[in-house]
Amino acid sequence: MKKTVQIDLAANEKRVPAFDGNVDFHANHSPMGAYMSFTAGHFNAAGGLGVELGRPAGQNIYVGVKKGDRRSRQPLVCLPFFKSAVSPTSAAAAFEVGQATNKQPPGVQSIAVDEIRRHYGWGSDQWVTPQFEFTLYSPFGEIPDPAVANVEAMRAALLPSIVGTLRVDNRQGTETLTGVFAIDFLDPGARLLNLGKDTSAAPRLGFAWKRKLGVAGTIQGGSDDSLFAIQRWSVAEGIADVNHVHALGTIGGLAFEVPPGEIRVLHLAIGVYLDGVVTTGLEGRYQYTRYYTGLEQVLSTALDRSAELRTKARNLDAQLLASKLSADQQFLIAHATRSYYANTQLLDIGGEPMFIVNEGEYCMMNTLDLSIDQAFWELDRNPWVVRNILDSFSRDYSYIDQVKTRTGELRTGGITFTHDIGVNNNFSAPGTSSYELRELKGCFSFMTQEQLCNWILLAACYVAKTNDLKWLAENAHLIESCATSMRARANSRTGVMTCDSDRCGGGSEITTYDSLDESLGQARANTYIAVKCWASWLALDMLRRMQDESPTDSLADIIAAHLSTAVVDGVIPAVLEKDNPGYVSRILPVAEALIYPAYWLGCLSSKHEDARDALCRALNSPFINVIAKHTKALLLDPQKRNLFPDGGIRLSSTSNNSWMS
Amino acid sequence: MKKTVQIDLAANEKRVPAFDGNVDFHANHSPMGAYMSFTAGHFNAAGGLGVELGRPAGQNIYVGVKKGDRRSRQPLVCLPFFKSAVSPTSAAAAFEVGQATNKQPPGVQSIAVDEIRRHYGWGSDQWVTPQFEFTLYSPFGEIPDPAVANVEAMRAALLPSIVGTLRVDNRQGTETLTGVFAIDFLDPGARLLNLGKDTSAAPRLGFAWKRKLGVAGTIQGGSDDSLFAIQRWSVAEGIADVNHVHALGTIGGLAFEVPPGEIRVLHLAIGVYLDGVVTTGLEGRYQYTRYYTGLEQVLSTALDRSAELRTKARNLDAQLLASKLSADQQFLIAHATRSYYANTQLLDIGGEPMFIVNEGEYCMMNTLDLSIDQAFWELDRNPWVVRNILDSFSRDYSYIDQVKTRTGELRTGGITFTHDIGVNNNFSAPGTSSYELRELKGCFSFMTQEQLCNWILLAACYVAKTNDLKWLAENAHLIESCATSMRARANSRTGVMTCDSDRCGGGSEITTYDSLDESLGQARANTYIAVKCWASWLALDMLRRMQDESPTDSLADIIAAHLSTAVVDGVIPAVLEKDNPGYVSRILPVAEALIYPAYWLGCLSSKHEDARDALCRALNSPFINVIAKHTKALLLDPQKRNLFPDGGIRLSSTSNNSWMS
Repeated sequence: MKKTVQIDLAANEKRVPAFDGNVDFHANHSPMGAYMSFTAGHFNAAGGLGVELGRPAGQNIYVGVKKGDRRSRQPLVCLPFFKSAVSPTSAAAAFEVGQATNKQPPGVQSIAVDEIRRHYGWGSDQWVTPQFEFTLYSPFGEIPDPAVANVEAMRAALLPSIVGTLRVDNRQGTETLTGVFAIDFLDPGARLLNLGKDTSAAPRLGFAWKRKLGVAGTIQGGSDDSLFAIQRWSVAEGIADVNHVHALGTIGGLAFEVPPGEIRVLHLAIGVYLDGVVTTGLEGRYQYTRYYTGLEQVLSTALDRSAELRTKARNLDAQLLASKLSADQQFLIAHATRSYYANTQLLDIGGEPMFIVNEGEYCMMNTLDLSIDQAFWELDRNPWVVRNILDSFSRDYSYIDQVKTRTGELRTGGITFTHDIGVNNNFSAPGTSSYELRELKGCFSFMTQEQLCNWILLAACYVAKTNDLKWLAENAHLIESCATSMRARANSRTGVMTCDSDRCGGGSEITTYDSLDESLGQARANTYIAVKCWASWLALDMLRRMQDESPTDSLADIIAAHLSTAVVDGVIPAVLEKDNPGYVSRILPVAEALIYPAYWLGCLSSKHEDARDALCRALNSPFINVIAKHTKALLLDPQKRNLFPDGGIRLSSTSNNSWMS
Repeated sequence: MKKTVQIDLAANEKRVPAFDGNVDFHANHSPMGAYMSFTAGHFNAAGGLGVELGRPAGQNIYVGVKKGDRRSRQPLVCLPFFKSAVSPTSAAAAFEVGQATNKQPPGVQSIAVDEIRRHYGWGSDQWVTPQFEFTLYSPFGEIPDPAVANVEAMRAALLPSIVGTLRVDNRQGTETLTGVFAIDFLDPGARLLNLGKDTSAAPRLGFAWKRKLGVAGTIQGGSDDSLFAIQRWSVAEGIADVNHVHALGTIGGLAFEVPPGEIRVLHLAIGVYLDGVVTTGLEGRYQYTRYYTGLEQVLSTALDRSAELRTKARNLDAQLLASKLSADQQFLIAHATRSYYANTQLLDIGGEPMFIVNEGEYCMMNTLDLSIDQAFWELDRNPWVVRNILDSFSRDYSYIDQVKTRTGELRTGGITFTHDIGVNNNFSAPGTSSYELRELKGCFSFMTQEQLCNWILLAACYVAKTNDLKWLAENAHLIESCATSMRARANSRTGVMTCDSDRCGGGSEITTYDSLDESLGQARANTYIAVKCWASWLALDMLRRMQDESPTDSLADIIAAHLSTAVVDGVIPAVLEKDNPGYVSRILPVAEALIYPAYWLGCLSSKHEDARDALCRALNSPFINVIAKHTKALLLDPQKRNLFPDGGIRLSSTSNNSWMS
């Protein structure tokens, strides 16, 4: 070995066990609040560095090694993170009309799938091949409340970049190897970056796409010229040709030689920077623009913090591994966590923070029925985020409707909340969502009743978890209005929702399970909604008790009693209308809302004895047994009506649709 | 007729004659300096509203009419400005997994090509169909110098919007018609605009894509609710459905009903607004952002000025029609003008204006060999723009090289200029272009000699046209350096360029005809370059005389004498190296540079008698006859070596490539 490598080579990191199954899947690798993803992992498919997208970016990623030094004409052996082994040459060809061309072959080979092991942790995602190891680190954690946190803490949490390493171990080799990390943006606009030298005097080079997207890297273990940047139409040509750089090229990359007997690690920062106002309706800028001047500073900071960010990611890996969850469950947690942060967006709107979670491929902003699902996660980490969402809905995205009785009359409704607050960075007009349409009975109709429940439940989770009685007191009037609105929609005899919002016109409300059939599509007389209303009444009652007010005039017991009498053969019908096709459907989400009182009970301190007692009474009532029996009947049904042929759980016995939600 | 229409219905406009030929072609419709194009005209292809693109935008445009009112289920009969008659429904389908869908058919039909007449003028582009007339107006004219012009003049010239009209004449009809103008952006991000009412109280509605692209419209001749905006995944559904608007939809549009007996005109503004810094290297903002607050103001202003802009466009139409040029020539002028403005970009960099012309699909910025081609156009309109480009090159994009003698020695070269100043909004590092690479002999090599000529010729054109002796005095030292640099590259005996720049490494310089063969690919000993050098020497001489300096020690006569002796059978070989394949090539561009002294002579006032006399002597010298004979020999060659089979002119007898440049 020619020289002693004394630096952190990431070799001693504790590795997540190799993924046991098909490793050919995309994952988001994202910082928090930047609505950014470096998407990689699905073979022979586009991915790369995207921002504000409801899909993977459409770029080719080249991560690989070739035998020989940079001038070698050996093929680059790369992870199959690109659409085709043939690089697009049309951009180059356009310059050479009618001319004889003498192009190098693209010179890229994919590593065989069975030579790739993937180590998929909570914070790290690693591909190990015979030639090299490539690892992406996307740690996550607390996002401090900008209203109270200091700038340094905010700056650290909101760095819009992830980090990575490409490790090429040539200690056993007899000839030089050349490694590369490159992205073909395909869309013209690539450029190179020179970020000077780090504290150990190692040069920092990089590449970017216009002002928005960028990658910076530095080599530990090499000399000054170990690292070189390339820009061409062909990654192989960029490395081997005398001209590493042609500014017309759509590919940017970083390459490095590894002499025999040595090991080198390319440390990467992969980040974004979107300046200025990025939204309409409400004019928001990314909160991180308060703490970073631009892309170059983001990437430099990420390289400065690389070791710390990798350690954080490895600690998260260890935490999930120690969770005693099954490997499948761990995968689902790790995958969902990545997808979640890819869609988070922390904006600064008129000096106030606004936290937004975009709904995956649909890009709807703060869909309220997802906010309640995600509340448990955020309340463990960033309760202020939940308060932020609650306040945003009450300030801008609530409305007061009338309701339609079954006989067609309009009567006073009450306050409720929109399905979402906009889509694709375009905020909706106040009091409206991007999703809901009138005159419909299925997908895209209003979710008036359910979103009312969701806001109430979200408020209850927030207050129970944080004991923020100040917020509760400030919102007491609103919570009372919610109770009034709940009552206006209910059948006073059964407690079950019976009145659709007049916003539906001639249509009727739906539930968040909008792509299922009548069993969960219709909100009215739906037993999933009924139990959600039951939980909402418990919430309203709890919030009054936490303020030492008298108990609310709740419909919870009435609902419980009615549902208990509706049981047929141990099962509660999905829709309590005998002429409705959903009457014969058997749905598991009837049990869903039990989670809320159980969660509150787990949160409330003994200071709130009265509220605790009320929740205990509800959770020990016979109604809980009714739901337990219903659920067991469905899960253990000899006819397996709530199972798919592969054993997967079917939410509704009459729908073939299933999802993790 | 139910009501009297007293407004401007665009019916009395003088129409350009119908296009005689294939009307199926795209054209850019652009304001000045916004790097924007509304691209339309190529059938069954993508087009639409693009900004900073080297290609048409990838959108579908729906311009059409259906029988019946908005609720009618009759098909929309549209211009074939969309990729397929079937609207993409995948975005909608993604919401309805496993659900039975009951979608309306797309409901769009293309108008048959033989039913479309196109009237393609200098300022207007009109499609006339049996059902309606659709017209786009893109007037152009002076761009005042921001250094001296007042804000109102700048604001007027730099409005980043064009205007259009959609005229539906139902005066002979017996049933209502419904017209629409819509764009399917395909990329998520559409939203609606409400711009209030105009001075006649007609509502102004519109749609946009995020903060960047937008369309606004108003109806003359209708009532308050005549115009309605739509946003859906299907244009037909957007018009006919009870929900005109679904914020998830990728289509934005404006629709209107025309009762029988009436005529309505939808006035359109189609514009863009890019805020903030848009470039790298040098940080530039669009100059128009100094005069407009955002997209809404741009579109409102365009509607306010619609009548004026249409009149300007019609005046330009009339001007070209009166030019006595042939219809083919008029088409080429009109088409080139549109393409030119689509690629113009006026930036504000640190408070100073910077005028950029982007090179079509390649997006290279201020390619100097195009700047000289475009100089005649700009000197007629905006001479300051030419000065701006000259100064940008001398300040940031000049360099001093060494040159290689034929024996391989390096010797002092001199000042010269880069091929371009960047690409795709990324400015190159000072003294470098995005295009040029070393170690090449063909495409992408350096154009050192030719760009030196181009800067000299551009300076001479500017000074001759404007008589800006102040600028000339300030740049006298630079012009002297150019003469020194010219001499360093020339064979002192022949005057012909013989030394390649050391920037080529082992390669050699090329000419701007970079995609032709050896006849024009190689700069050294090339007779096209030789005549360009001859003209450059005349320029240097003229500029000295205009300053009342003694004549320069010119190589013009030496070049002329040498080329005159090189004639073989009345023709000057393309390359004056007998062993070069280009020696047998016969090229027309030998004559190209004669234009410059002829232009200067036409510009110079009698105050510059000495300079005029020198130019007259040159243009009456026997050398001009040599070139005239050469040119006639090629054009009238019995073997037709410089003609294509269809009669088109072949620039080089040995290349099959041809273009308008």
